[in-house]
Amino acid sequence: MRLRNIKGAQEIVSTSSYVISNPQEYRGKWNILFANHNPIHLEIGMGKGNFLIENAIKYPNINFIGIEKYYSVLVRTTDRLKTLDLPNLKIIVMDAKEIEQIFDKEINTIYLNFSDPWPKKKHEKRRLTSEEFLKKYDNLFTNKKHIMQKTDNRKLFEYSLISCTDYGYHIENISCNLYEDRFENNIPTEYETKFVNKGYTIYFVEFQK
Amino acid sequence: MRLRNIKGAQEIVSTSSYVISNPQEYRGKWNILFANHNPIHLEIGMGKGNFLIENAIKYPNINFIGIEKYYSVLVRTTDRLKTLDLPNLKIIVMDAKEIEQIFDKEINTIYLNFSDPWPKKKHEKRRLTSEEFLKKYDNLFTNKKHIMQKTDNRKLFEYSLISCTDYGYHIENISCNLYEDRFENNIPTEYETKFVNKGYTIYFVEFQK
Repeated sequence: MRLRNIKGAQEIVSTSSYVISNPQEYRGKWNILFANHNPIHLEIGMGKGNFLIENAIKYPNINFIGIEKYYSVLVRTTDRLKTLDLPNLKIIVMDAKEIEQIFDKEINTIYLNFSDPWPKKKHEKRRLTSEEFLKKYDNLFTNKKHIMQKTDNRKLFEYSLISCTDYGYHIENISCNLYEDRFENNIPTEYETKFVNKGYTIYFVEFQK
Repeated sequence: MRLRNIKGAQEIVSTSSYVISNPQEYRGKWNILFANHNPIHLEIGMGKGNFLIENAIKYPNINFIGIEKYYSVLVRTTDRLKTLDLPNLKIIVMDAKEIEQIFDKEINTIYLNFSDPWPKKKHEKRRLTSEEFLKKYDNLFTNKKHIMQKTDNRKLFEYSLISCTDYGYHIENISCNLYEDRFENNIPTEYETKFVNKGYTIYFVEFQK
């Protein structure tokens, strides 16, 4: 994501009640924070948050947590959230690398939307579907593992298909052209809307293990 | 394939020395027919044969066998072959369903190029990457199993990715847009050339087990 740095972003974002500043304290007990035992879905790299917010509105019986690395990306998100009352939505500002310190066998679904493709071979480990990350995810899931990915990056999509099936995931659903399939109930991210308007192909895959 | 029936096709095609009329007799001993122990590659649904002929010219140390269901498709193929001397190429006119009666643990690679997608669920078993066919292929391969598929049909491609990985195949190579990748050494089929000229996306995948 090309990032415009916003002065004072950290201070602005941190004051939002949606943003959890001490996430380590909830490791293994996020259900206590949400005060229910509903399934928890996690978006890694939530960006500006449209996907997560629309999901949280549409599915009140699912808890949604978004993680995002940069405060600047979230300034408008937390602003938008001021007008909404969504007890099933939380945000964490953190690096995905540290994710095992935050969750422990309590996630039902992971969403990877328009993740950084890290095209260079030497950066492979940084891709969110690399074996390194898949190993981390193993410790986050309750039992059944469930990853949903959308991307406009064909190479990342192809990489994920190889990486996840080699890791033992089954392809539950796949579309090499999501918008040609008019996929029911699809909620777009900000990037997705922009890319679709430019005529880019959107790839989608759902893995289960 | 939309088929134009050609009168007398069977008689014309059968006279070609490239066409093997008694293939059952070579089951388990195709190397004797080729008079060498070179690897044998099989194209199921060879159509008009450009892919197979060009491969046979380019790789004289590989034996190529094409199977095709319809004589009419092969009339121009056998005509073209009259001008060529390719001891490493053979053709069988048969239905792919019967393939286990023809080969026994002697095939190294199977090519599935622009196969009929059989889009209806009730015809799933007829798709050349259905579990039914994958089971048959198990008995054809020498040891290592190796399938290469090209198609313009996105749904067939997506189906194959699910079906073959569920069957235990590893995705060795994949391209959701072969011509954007300028895949080295690609030899097109007649269909492929036509489809590429129309701007269709060509999908490619290589499976190993």
